[in-house]
Amino acid sequence: MSLSPSLLRLAAARLRTPSLAAGVASSSPWRLAVGHPRLAVGPVTAAAPAFLARFMASAAAAAPAATPLTLPSGLRSPTDEDIAAFRAMLPTPGSVVTDEDALAPHNTDWMGRFIGRSRVLLKPRSTDEVAAILRHCNEQGIPLVPQGGNTGMVGGSVPVADEVILSLAGMASIEAFDAASGVVTAQAGVVLEALDTYVGERGHRVPLDLGAKGSCQIGGNVATNAGGSRYVRYGSLRASVLGVEAVLPSGEVLAGLTSLRKDNTGYDLKQLMIGGEGTLGVITRVALACPPLSAAVHVTLLKVPSWANAVSLLAAAKGQLAEILSAFEFMDAPAVKLAVTHLSHVRDPLGPDEDAGATDGPFYVLIETAGSSAAHDREKLDTFLESSMESELVTDGVMAESAGQAAAFWELRESLPEAVGKAGTKVFKYDISLPMDAFYRIVTDARALLADAGADADVVGWGHMGDGNLHLNVAARGDVAAVAAALEPWVYEQVAAARGSVSAEHGLGVMKAGAIGYTKDAVSVEVMRGIKALLDPKGILNPLKMLPRVGEEKTA
Amino acid sequence: MSLSPSLLRLAAARLRTPSLAAGVASSSPWRLAVGHPRLAVGPVTAAAPAFLARFMASAAAAAPAATPLTLPSGLRSPTDEDIAAFRAMLPTPGSVVTDEDALAPHNTDWMGRFIGRSRVLLKPRSTDEVAAILRHCNEQGIPLVPQGGNTGMVGGSVPVADEVILSLAGMASIEAFDAASGVVTAQAGVVLEALDTYVGERGHRVPLDLGAKGSCQIGGNVATNAGGSRYVRYGSLRASVLGVEAVLPSGEVLAGLTSLRKDNTGYDLKQLMIGGEGTLGVITRVALACPPLSAAVHVTLLKVPSWANAVSLLAAAKGQLAEILSAFEFMDAPAVKLAVTHLSHVRDPLGPDEDAGATDGPFYVLIETAGSSAAHDREKLDTFLESSMESELVTDGVMAESAGQAAAFWELRESLPEAVGKAGTKVFKYDISLPMDAFYRIVTDARALLADAGADADVVGWGHMGDGNLHLNVAARGDVAAVAAALEPWVYEQVAAARGSVSAEHGLGVMKAGAIGYTKDAVSVEVMRGIKALLDPKGILNPLKMLPRVGEEKTA
Repeated sequence: MSLSPSLLRLAAARLRTPSLAAGVASSSPWRLAVGHPRLAVGPVTAAAPAFLARFMASAAAAAPAATPLTLPSGLRSPTDEDIAAFRAMLPTPGSVVTDEDALAPHNTDWMGRFIGRSRVLLKPRSTDEVAAILRHCNEQGIPLVPQGGNTGMVGGSVPVADEVILSLAGMASIEAFDAASGVVTAQAGVVLEALDTYVGERGHRVPLDLGAKGSCQIGGNVATNAGGSRYVRYGSLRASVLGVEAVLPSGEVLAGLTSLRKDNTGYDLKQLMIGGEGTLGVITRVALACPPLSAAVHVTLLKVPSWANAVSLLAAAKGQLAEILSAFEFMDAPAVKLAVTHLSHVRDPLGPDEDAGATDGPFYVLIETAGSSAAHDREKLDTFLESSMESELVTDGVMAESAGQAAAFWELRESLPEAVGKAGTKVFKYDISLPMDAFYRIVTDARALLADAGADADVVGWGHMGDGNLHLNVAARGDVAAVAAALEPWVYEQVAAARGSVSAEHGLGVMKAGAIGYTKDAVSVEVMRGIKALLDPKGILNPLKMLPRVGEEKTA
Repeated sequence: MSLSPSLLRLAAARLRTPSLAAGVASSSPWRLAVGHPRLAVGPVTAAAPAFLARFMASAAAAAPAATPLTLPSGLRSPTDEDIAAFRAMLPTPGSVVTDEDALAPHNTDWMGRFIGRSRVLLKPRSTDEVAAILRHCNEQGIPLVPQGGNTGMVGGSVPVADEVILSLAGMASIEAFDAASGVVTAQAGVVLEALDTYVGERGHRVPLDLGAKGSCQIGGNVATNAGGSRYVRYGSLRASVLGVEAVLPSGEVLAGLTSLRKDNTGYDLKQLMIGGEGTLGVITRVALACPPLSAAVHVTLLKVPSWANAVSLLAAAKGQLAEILSAFEFMDAPAVKLAVTHLSHVRDPLGPDEDAGATDGPFYVLIETAGSSAAHDREKLDTFLESSMESELVTDGVMAESAGQAAAFWELRESLPEAVGKAGTKVFKYDISLPMDAFYRIVTDARALLADAGADADVVGWGHMGDGNLHLNVAARGDVAAVAAALEPWVYEQVAAARGSVSAEHGLGVMKAGAIGYTKDAVSVEVMRGIKALLDPKGILNPLKMLPRVGEEKTA
């Protein structure tokens, strides 16, 4: 079976431009050198790569520094005596950082929206050192914030006041790999991309991929139950993570570092650490099941005329591509337009469309397949694409003919956060789960809402459609306070009404802690409080994150 | 590519016997009518199918009735007044069962090893009724045991004394199915096979399969985090279960019945209910993600000369069959021999082997593939089988050429528990996880241990090799107390030394509650106790299950 040339113009003809040939690695704000966390080397404007510094400066200018919050009573700031005690616990030079410039990038998130004023960062080299730190802080009532790659979206990994910053960057060893099972055991500070490269060289693949892979750390990925673009194939970390070692606030070690695929002996405590956002314990080591690397990977970019067609295409892909489907990402045309307008290194392989900016469609869909036979996979893909074209689900498309082209298609998708950052003086970001019937409606409704209000804003949507996960982004200019007032709590109310989730994969952090009640019932929130009090009775670990302060819950 | 006839004798020629043609449904102790829980209809010996009655009678005779245990202080037996209160809460006729004969099958597990003396079974029809029951029992300090299909292996679903039995059999509605996502929402009492049939008619497949499918209930499956033979493909229920509604001991409802694939808002409380063995709450409804039904399923049965070859074959299958591998089950030759010796309806399609009974090998491996293209899958399978034969990993094999033959191969595998039940006057069963290098050694070591002790016993092994899950079974005759003394704690010590798990998929129940310490650290057990105390401060729910009584922990 062969493809109609009218549908599948080969990407080669359109993509051989220098800017795309340069590939993915150099341009994204997240993709920096493996093993060198982006913000760990000095003040942002001095040490970060040129692009990043520019991006962060504009973001910081747009979003005024958050006022440090007041910590709950019973907690106290670290003193010089505490710092001396930390130095005694952590004998390796460089493990206790108090220099203000060196601390700056750890006191703020990568978008510059949350700015703490911690005066000390600790960089333990072992689980025992983490335990010693926590024991001391728990005895003394000193709050801490665990920090991995600090690439989060909700301010979960930065201080809200002057908490001690507990960096995991000094614990970055890959400790074991079992070739038979594909299970890798690593310390929390290993950068995701380094881990993927390591297991990739051994014929396996980390079941997790996201834009921040060059900076984020596996411990932070697990602590936030990170999702990303391989989720549609490999599912949740809740099944892939086999073991977690974590230090409790008391300093006791939860020694759960098993690498067994099955273990039904008691409550699965690691699940409290997975997605616990560092509020119950500090993850120090993880064991992760990595599936075999696929011999064949195909990436296609398709244009779909309407939302209804996109939904039908997803169903067709699940049915026909089935076991080889490894990503199904969607982008609306206004999002793609922002990327090609604001980012010189990004091209739209399918070209502009007259309908771009229309309220419903066209949409771009990126489909990746991964399988063990290139010939079989290509045949399935050809059949799928031909039938999609014949049924007019799809109007145009390109298939990557090289790894570079595949990377360029992914770059278009992964450049969207950067693009909206450039398009607005303030960006409102919502990472939500919605049922398919309500999925895109919230984008068109938000667009209409802001147009009626006379706001100057781009409202765009993209996301992991195969998992029901929408990234609704509003790039606002001018009166951003009016835009904020129009959007919130309207967005959360819409999500609650559709029985969605106010945070699909980003977590709650400090940004959305108060919004949990929109999509979680009051009994659940009370049980969560009980678990927090059980494991962290003094509340030293990542205070004011994830759970709302009593009396500040918003409920639907 | 075609297969060598010398390797793949077609199964048809060997399997066309009336006993196998009759299929799977009638002969297994677990596969009974869908929707009619096996033991819910009256006394075992009167109402259970003939085979089952025979089997249970012999099992009960072999294993003396467990002496009812003493419940913790602070709990009390239900009185006539309580029963009157239950009748008022549950107005549907038949919801409150006090007849001794009717209660008998609910007071004992299917193997007759654990026998309680409850005087009342409640059969609520709604979540509200479950909540009313728990509220009353919590106020009054009356203990309960939740019961699904009562097919468990560790006495988790039967009373240990005179607890109220809370049956979920009256809540058996499939409430919703989303064709786009494959998510099914069902009440806890739906029988697994009925659920699989329902979603199967709609093009999907429950990501869980086990021998007890005809009787076990989805609520019990989730409460025990059931594993089974599809685990190697679809992974843990911890990722497939999207939502859980559960009633807490207080009577409050944990309203977590979302059907979203992604939701990172707070601690994932449903994970405490999944595998919580009914000790923290009563699961009333679940939402489960069901993958698309595969167009093509192939089942092969292979003979492998040594354990080293079996390990290599697993690696080859993961590499070459990759995304279509849906089961990799192993059986040792002595296990197969027991099945064909003791069960008239079971045949060995590969015939007897002179080496049967040898300490290491031969082994039988059942491989199932499931994919979207029969042609592609067959080609992958042919290539895999040919290379396995050429490299002499495999010495013999058959491929099922019909659904009936496929079912017969599975029947051989699933008949093994029944076979060992017939082979011994007492059967010692261990469901353990072990790393591959230690996996089969424990079987040969146990065989040597018992031979040295002069015991009259068959020591056999089978299990979900693709998931590192071994079922070590010892069918003992004669001095079974001596066999018991030789096996325990030796088995647990071996598992602990190999960093395995003392319960891979069966859970702990009352049988293994004291063994948790062999493969879980003391800090974890203390945190589990804390969570139990948080959610069930009076300890009314499934007492003496899963967690060891204080002072009775065994630690490695």
